[in-house]
Amino acid sequence: MSLFLDLVPVKEAVRVLQTCAPGLPAETVPLPEALGRILAAPVTAREDTPGFSRSVVDGYAVYAADTTGAGEAIPAMLAITGRIGMGEGDIPPLSRGECMYVPTGAILPPGADAVAMIEYSEEMGREVLVRRAVAPGENVTLRGDDFHAGEEVFEPGRYLSPRDLGVLGGIGYGTVPVIRQPKVGIISTGNELVPVEQVPGPGEIRDVNTYLCYGYVCERGGTPEIFGIVPDEREALEEAVRRAARSCDLVLISGGSSKGERDMCAAIIEEMGTVHIHGIALAPGKPTIIGTIGTTPVIGLPGHPASSYVVLIALVDELIGAMTSSAVHHRIRKATLTTNISSARGREDYVRVRLEGDDAVPLFGKSGLTNTLIYSTGLVRVPESREGLERGEEVEVILW
Amino acid sequence: MSLFLDLVPVKEAVRVLQTCAPGLPAETVPLPEALGRILAAPVTAREDTPGFSRSVVDGYAVYAADTTGAGEAIPAMLAITGRIGMGEGDIPPLSRGECMYVPTGAILPPGADAVAMIEYSEEMGREVLVRRAVAPGENVTLRGDDFHAGEEVFEPGRYLSPRDLGVLGGIGYGTVPVIRQPKVGIISTGNELVPVEQVPGPGEIRDVNTYLCYGYVCERGGTPEIFGIVPDEREALEEAVRRAARSCDLVLISGGSSKGERDMCAAIIEEMGTVHIHGIALAPGKPTIIGTIGTTPVIGLPGHPASSYVVLIALVDELIGAMTSSAVHHRIRKATLTTNISSARGREDYVRVRLEGDDAVPLFGKSGLTNTLIYSTGLVRVPESREGLERGEEVEVILW
Repeated sequence: MSLFLDLVPVKEAVRVLQTCAPGLPAETVPLPEALGRILAAPVTAREDTPGFSRSVVDGYAVYAADTTGAGEAIPAMLAITGRIGMGEGDIPPLSRGECMYVPTGAILPPGADAVAMIEYSEEMGREVLVRRAVAPGENVTLRGDDFHAGEEVFEPGRYLSPRDLGVLGGIGYGTVPVIRQPKVGIISTGNELVPVEQVPGPGEIRDVNTYLCYGYVCERGGTPEIFGIVPDEREALEEAVRRAARSCDLVLISGGSSKGERDMCAAIIEEMGTVHIHGIALAPGKPTIIGTIGTTPVIGLPGHPASSYVVLIALVDELIGAMTSSAVHHRIRKATLTTNISSARGREDYVRVRLEGDDAVPLFGKSGLTNTLIYSTGLVRVPESREGLERGEEVEVILW
Repeated sequence: MSLFLDLVPVKEAVRVLQTCAPGLPAETVPLPEALGRILAAPVTAREDTPGFSRSVVDGYAVYAADTTGAGEAIPAMLAITGRIGMGEGDIPPLSRGECMYVPTGAILPPGADAVAMIEYSEEMGREVLVRRAVAPGENVTLRGDDFHAGEEVFEPGRYLSPRDLGVLGGIGYGTVPVIRQPKVGIISTGNELVPVEQVPGPGEIRDVNTYLCYGYVCERGGTPEIFGIVPDEREALEEAVRRAARSCDLVLISGGSSKGERDMCAAIIEEMGTVHIHGIALAPGKPTIIGTIGTTPVIGLPGHPASSYVVLIALVDELIGAMTSSAVHHRIRKATLTTNISSARGREDYVRVRLEGDDAVPLFGKSGLTNTLIYSTGLVRVPESREGLERGEEVEVILW
C-alpha cells in the first residue's frame, strides 16, 4: 500500500461529482413552503398582470389632452362624474372634459389615459381644478405592464427568495413545483470522538463535524439526518454507511479518509460500491474520497473540521448543485490581500481570511484548529495555475 | 385633513423604532436548532480545547532534538516503543532516542514535542529512520491551542452559522441560549385584493404582500402568522389588527397607509394605541406608519409591493435587530453606477439595481410594478444629504 494518495485536480473532481449526482425529482408544495427551494419547472404568467390599467396615485382619472397647458395660474377645469372604489370593475366610460376620482391601485374608467395627482388638484363642488398638466400614461400602470400572459417569469433552477414568493402569489401560483430537498446522511467516525454532552478524557475530543455538516446541509436547503459517532471498527462503520446510503440521497462521512492505518472508509465504499476518487489536489482537503453506493454519492471528508468545511464549499456545493439542477452561487466580495499566500502549482488552495474593511487578512492557523472557522469571514481560492497570491492583489473572498 | 403627510427623516424613524422595540426573551434550544438563531448570552470555553497535545499528521512522536540534522543521506534512527491508537489516553512517557507511532489527531506521549511525518520516515523492524528533521512543536496542536478554559468564544447577539454550530459542539454546548424568534403577524388590506387561487376580475389584483412579508419574516428568523386579506372596512380591519397585536410580537399591515380617502390604518392604530410616525422622508416608502398597540409595534407598509419591500429593508430590519438585540448586517457589494440617479435633498431614496459584472444598472420602473423585485439584485441608497448619485460613482449595493 502506497503512503501517498494519487491526487486528482479539483476540476476533474467536480466533473466526476456532476457525473455521479443523482437528479432529484420535483414535488409540488404550497406557496409559503417554496421559500428557499429550487424551482423545478418554468413559471409563466397565465394572464396579463395587472389585468387592467391602474392608477399609481390618489387623484383624478382624465384625458391627458384635457390638461394641456394647465398650471397654478390657469388650472384645467373638469366635471367630476364619479368616484371609483378599490376593487370596483364595472366603470362607465369617461367623456372629454370629465374626470373621476381614483385611489391608488384602482381601475381607470374606459377612455381615461392619465391621472392628475390629488396634491395638484382641487375639488370644488361638481368640478375639479387640475393645476398641473399630465402626459398620456402619466401615473398609470397599463394592463400587462408587470407581466404579459404567456411570459416566462421564472426559469427552472432558480432559488426562490421572499420577493419571488410575492411575485408567484401575484401571478396566481398557490402551489409551486420545486426540486425535492436532498436528504443527507451525516456520519462522524473516529475512536477519539465523544458526544457533545460528554467531557473528553485524555486523547478524546468532542464531535464537531456532525454539527458543522448539519448546519451546512440546512443552509444548502437539504434535510440532514444524523447517524452519530461511529468508532473505527469495520463492522460498525459498514453498518452505518449501508443504512445511510439506503435511506439518503447523499452521505457525508467525516474522518477515516486519509491513508493512515485506521482509515477504512475508502475500503468500505469500494466494497459496497465504487471509489471514483481518493485524494484531490486541494489544500486543505487532500484526503477527500468521492464514491457511490448504488446511485447514492458517498463523500469521505477529512476529519479536521476546517478542512471538512473547505471540501463542503469547494466540492459538495457542486454536487448538491448538480443534484438539485441549480447553479452554485457563492457570495463573493472583492478585497485586497494583506500578506502573501504561498501555494503549490497544480494544487488548489483555500485560505481562510478575515475581512477588515476592504482588506482580506489571511488567518494562518495550525491544521486541525477550529477557531479559524469562527474568526474568518470566508475563503480565498488560490487557483491551481498559481504558486501563490501576492500582498496587495485584489482577490475574491467567498463569504461564509 | 391635510393631503400631505408630515415627513420624518429616516434616521429619526430608526430611532423611534429602536425605542419602541420590545426586547424578546431568551430560550434554550438543542444545538441543531440553534442554527440561524441569535445568541442570547456569552459562550465561554469550559475547558482547554483540545485537552491534550495532538498530532496533526500520521507519523512518529519524537523529541525534536533527536532529529536534528536528519536528512535523506543520514536519517535519525529511533527505537519504536509503541503505537498510539485514536482516543487512547494513558500513554507511557517517551524517552530520548525513542519514538511512537501516532495517527492524525491522537495524543502525544509525555515528553514528545514533535511528530515526524510518516511520508518522511521508514519503519525497519524495531526502529524508525526519520529522513527529515522536525522542530519542537512541529505537526503538533498544543493543549488549549483552539480555545482556553474560560475564554469567551462567542458574544451575545451573534447570528449562529453552521461553523458556529460545529464549534459550539466542540466546546460542549449541547444546548444553546438564543433569543426567542419574533412572531410576526401579517395583514394585507384592500378591497381590490383577491387570494392567490382566484383569477382577478376587472379592478382586482392578487395579494402579493402577504407572501412577500411571509418570506421576509422567515429569512429574518421570525415566525410569520398570516392573518389574510382584510377589506377596507373599519370593523374588519380593527378586528384583525386587535387579534394580531394580541398574539404577535410585531404586526405588519400592508396597504391602507397613505392619506387617501379609504386609508384608515393610522386611525385604527391611533384608536387602539399610538401612531408615532406617519410619513417618512423615504422613497419609495413615504406613507409608512410606525405605531404601537400596547407594547407591540405595528407597522403600516405601503400597498405597492416594491415600496413595501424597501421599507422592510430600510426600517423593519432595524426594528427586528433591536427586538433580537442583534446588529443589522446587510450584505453589501461595491459596484459602479451606470446612469445618474436623481433624488431630492432631505429624502432617502432606495433604487433597485441589477448587477452586471461590476456595474450597478438602475431599474427604473413605474411605481406599483412587481417585476423589478425579481429582475433586480438589490438596492442602492441615496443618502438624504445628496440630490442624486452620478454615473460612474462607486456605490454600495445592498444585496437582496
